[in-house]
Amino acid sequence: MAYRLHCVGASGNSFKVALFLNCAGLDWEPIGVDFAGGQTRDPAWRTAMNGMGEVPVLEFDGRRMSQSGAILTWLAETHGMFCPVGAEEKFETLRWLLFDNHKFTGNFAAHRILQSMMPEPAHPTVLAYMRSRVEGAFSIVDKHLANRSFMLGDRPTIVDFSLAGYVYYPTEETGFDIAAAFPALNKWRERVASLPGWKLPYELMPVGNSLPVRR
Amino acid sequence: MAYRLHCVGASGNSFKVALFLNCAGLDWEPIGVDFAGGQTRDPAWRTAMNGMGEVPVLEFDGRRMSQSGAILTWLAETHGMFCPVGAEEKFETLRWLLFDNHKFTGNFAAHRILQSMMPEPAHPTVLAYMRSRVEGAFSIVDKHLANRSFMLGDRPTIVDFSLAGYVYYPTEETGFDIAAAFPALNKWRERVASLPGWKLPYELMPVGNSLPVRR
Repeated sequence: MAYRLHCVGASGNSFKVALFLNCAGLDWEPIGVDFAGGQTRDPAWRTAMNGMGEVPVLEFDGRRMSQSGAILTWLAETHGMFCPVGAEEKFETLRWLLFDNHKFTGNFAAHRILQSMMPEPAHPTVLAYMRSRVEGAFSIVDKHLANRSFMLGDRPTIVDFSLAGYVYYPTEETGFDIAAAFPALNKWRERVASLPGWKLPYELMPVGNSLPVRR
Repeated sequence: MAYRLHCVGASGNSFKVALFLNCAGLDWEPIGVDFAGGQTRDPAWRTAMNGMGEVPVLEFDGRRMSQSGAILTWLAETHGMFCPVGAEEKFETLRWLLFDNHKFTGNFAAHRILQSMMPEPAHPTVLAYMRSRVEGAFSIVDKHLANRSFMLGDRPTIVDFSLAGYVYYPTEETGFDIAAAFPALNKWRERVASLPGWKLPYELMPVGNSLPVRR
């Protein structure tokens, strides 16, 4: 039975799971969600799919799972791929998944919506506030990656898939030139992009109705 | 050997762990951090204590652990208290810990700093933006708690400790009257406050140097 990933191309949180499924060589298909049309805010969708009102939702064997960090943990344990090994690595994995959701992905994704996906340009003060939060989080990861190939060391794990969520969207969407500002993070991003099965987010999830990018 | 919790009274992320330690009846002491003086931004502190630059840090047996959600998971497993039981509950626990860090605590704590702990009042547009993010997250938890005593059902678990981080700080700090706006969340907050060992954050962690509240 194939995995069905309810997602949309612009969702980096969906990309985290899509990329794992593709790099792990698992049988899966993307199922489009009408995000721009408000489907994830619809009470009926929330009751049926995810009370937290978010994508991705991974459907498998009648079960509907949400939260990319929980899904990645479950997939890694279920398939024995890109797993942390031992208590110490498992603890580190959880630490970074939480940091990613709280500060790395959390702020970067929110800034991107303000930057390029609101009907009107966001107030400059709001943008500057979120930008400073992104810079704090990205600097911490950039420093961590200065002497490591992947987040936990020599091999890729689900921590890398989690942090990779939004870093491949174009600069015109995110407002950040990662290559120029965060050199270690940029090299890591290239290493992740060389994994077999890697594709760009909109190519991996050519489905659903994303928020349009304001030009 | 006693647990040493590096923390500060105003840190609700520290309170999550302090409250667990106290309600579990464990031997622990709070160790103050000079947060207002910038200690968590000091590179030497980060190298020695936590590269992510955050409190709490739990010190035990020569080990220094950070990220409240990872610490709570470790404490629950180590002591067999307030644990999720079985694969399904463990998955739900991780889902909610991630949602808490990303949206519930994440936005509420950031809004509180803007609301009352910056030297100058934050720009109204920034405050309104963060306020709407808090309302979205709090509404989801309020709805979830409408027909449950605790987040996973009938008994308190680490999910409750995680979500409880910032909900007991006074309205003048947070800018939210939880009792008026989120009735189910308020009743849950009272249930958590009736657990043996519960105390208010500043009473449980009367240490360190918190950001002052702007009056």
